Amino acid sequence: MTKEIVLALDAMGGDKAPDMVIKGANIARVRHPQVRFKFFGDSKAIDPVLNRFKRLKPVSSVHHAEEVVEDDLKPSVALRQRRKSSMRLAIDAVKTGDADGIVSAGNTGAMMAFAKLSLRTLPGINRPAMVSVFPTERSECVMLDLGANIDCDSVTLVQFAMMGEVFARNVLGVHEPTVGLLNIGTEELKGNETIRQAAAILRDADLPIKFHGFIEGNDIAAGTVDVVVTDGFAGNVALKTAEGVAKLYIEYMRSAFRRGLLSRIGFLLARPALRALRDRVDPRAYNGGTFLGLNGVAVKSHGGTDHKGFANALSVAVDMIEQGVNPKIIEELERVNLDDVPDIARAAV
Amino acid sequence: MTKEIVLALDAMGGDKAPDMVIKGANIARVRHPQVRFKFFGDSKAIDPVLNRFKRLKPVSSVHHAEEVVEDDLKPSVALRQRRKSSMRLAIDAVKTGDADGIVSAGNTGAMMAFAKLSLRTLPGINRPAMVSVFPTERSECVMLDLGANIDCDSVTLVQFAMMGEVFARNVLGVHEPTVGLLNIGTEELKGNETIRQAAAILRDADLPIKFHGFIEGNDIAAGTVDVVVTDGFAGNVALKTAEGVAKLYIEYMRSAFRRGLLSRIGFLLARPALRALRDRVDPRAYNGGTFLGLNGVAVKSHGGTDHKGFANALSVAVDMIEQGVNPKIIEELERVNLDDVPDIARAAV
Repeated sequence: MTKEIVLALDAMGGDKAPDMVIKGANIARVRHPQVRFKFFGDSKAIDPVLNRFKRLKPVSSVHHAEEVVEDDLKPSVALRQRRKSSMRLAIDAVKTGDADGIVSAGNTGAMMAFAKLSLRTLPGINRPAMVSVFPTERSECVMLDLGANIDCDSVTLVQFAMMGEVFARNVLGVHEPTVGLLNIGTEELKGNETIRQAAAILRDADLPIKFHGFIEGNDIAAGTVDVVVTDGFAGNVALKTAEGVAKLYIEYMRSAFRRGLLSRIGFLLARPALRALRDRVDPRAYNGGTFLGLNGVAVKSHGGTDHKGFANALSVAVDMIEQGVNPKIIEELERVNLDDVPDIARAAV
Repeated sequence: MTKEIVLALDAMGGDKAPDMVIKGANIARVRHPQVRFKFFGDSKAIDPVLNRFKRLKPVSSVHHAEEVVEDDLKPSVALRQRRKSSMRLAIDAVKTGDADGIVSAGNTGAMMAFAKLSLRTLPGINRPAMVSVFPTERSECVMLDLGANIDCDSVTLVQFAMMGEVFARNVLGVHEPTVGLLNIGTEELKGNETIRQAAAILRDADLPIKFHGFIEGNDIAAGTVDVVVTDGFAGNVALKTAEGVAKLYIEYMRSAFRRGLLSRIGFLLARPALRALRDRVDPRAYNGGTFLGLNGVAVKSHGGTDHKGFANALSVAVDMIEQGVNPKIIEELERVNLDDVPDIARAAV
């Protein structure tokens, strides 16, 4: 029998909370019958919605939280002034062992700050990273960091590489994931010192990783590697730029099909295929940015998502827990000695 | 009468050189009858092709160059060992005043190195930037730097903003271009110190610029601003990521239209509209990354482009020259005193 899993949900996070959170949990309940849900938030708002889902209610509990973390609140303010928020209490449930993972569609910066404070990082990890999965011409790839860390030293990038590799292997099921370091050229001398040091370590330090080398921005969607490693600034720029271009293309296509009668008829005939295309690039399917490197499973759903997207974020959390991604990261890091690594890096530059 | 313009062309740069260069010039000749062409490169390769274009030949001259800059040659090696290359000699023609501008589809890094060495930067400019034009949901935007400078201080970013603004106004014809600084969030406290300093200067230094504030990656394609300012690392990542996603979407669309008979018929009916879409996103239309901030017009065409794309790069050079972009940048910079600016920046952080 599958082991029971408990997910703590920030019922107040996201544009359409709490409805979207509860409806999302109801979808996840069918997909993952082994999951129980703890909803944190305003019980007066949660209870009436939860009462409508007869099968979800028996596997759920509601934990009242007086405060909500607003979307535009600075993380530092949230840390000091939202200690009784739904987000904070849900994260704490993972810390105390009352839950196996937390999912929130709320303020990303605040979630990272609370999670770092409450859960701490895994042994051997300097900083947690934000990771997500993207569609590529070949299949899918994992990219990290997506914005949690603006400046990263070379050892931090190497830790990202190892965490991303474990994630790709265990959550995406890639046999021997290849890892690429995002740069602005593929030659060894490209990029700044940090990135060249990180490449030297990944190449020479005998890590249990298939290092492809440097990649460029176009390699992300091309699917050149399974794991894209970058600092949080470039990663966030790549993520958001990709979202913008995808939106632009869908808009272009829409207006193309509005040009004249024949185009409209053509659109009607091709509609099933175009629907399949839309599903293929549906951002909801790729919803659920995980914080990797924390001593606990914490998944961030897009704030603007609906219940289907939120259900997918819940699935990411379930996969992380059932595949034991965190224990495997610890194991992997114990096998390598990153203490030797600065010497390799120094020698390389 | 329009003043005569002389363009120096690196006839050996690009995958399909020299044919593509000469055919491109032949298209540009019709568009811009005021232009004369100087082809630099292996005269034995150039002459037979040029002889086929009866109307191009009388407005062209061939200048033999013994050496070629290979695509994968390091810029530092090119500087030392390709002093007699077609690229170097074409750039020198601008320096000596024998040409008004240079266009090459060759090695980007080598072109930047030669151009910096030979042409030097404009007075008041620390570093040249690479700039290009991108389609957006609203119309078009200018982005810089696209990869010439990995690390940029705040004053350099401010100079990029001013150069980009002059370019948007004079080459794109935007009345009062808005300028945005690429960041990973739009709140004032986001990003690293350099970027926050640059924002403070753009906001407080009374520059002749409409500063929008921080933008994120998705704002590029959304067309939130007319000028996107960023360092060369993030700019190159954004540029290449956008190229990759565009390619992915076109591939998705192709495979959607191959699904079943109805889709194929739908495709045939919608074909004219889809062709219009393709033209709208044709990378050849946006070919021609300009080096801004050099004491001379130097345009870099994509190495993989064809003659139509190369002709567009030639048009960018003609526009830059005829609109007097460089004199206008100098004029703009003379009007402001960037010496005061470090104080504003220091006060802001």
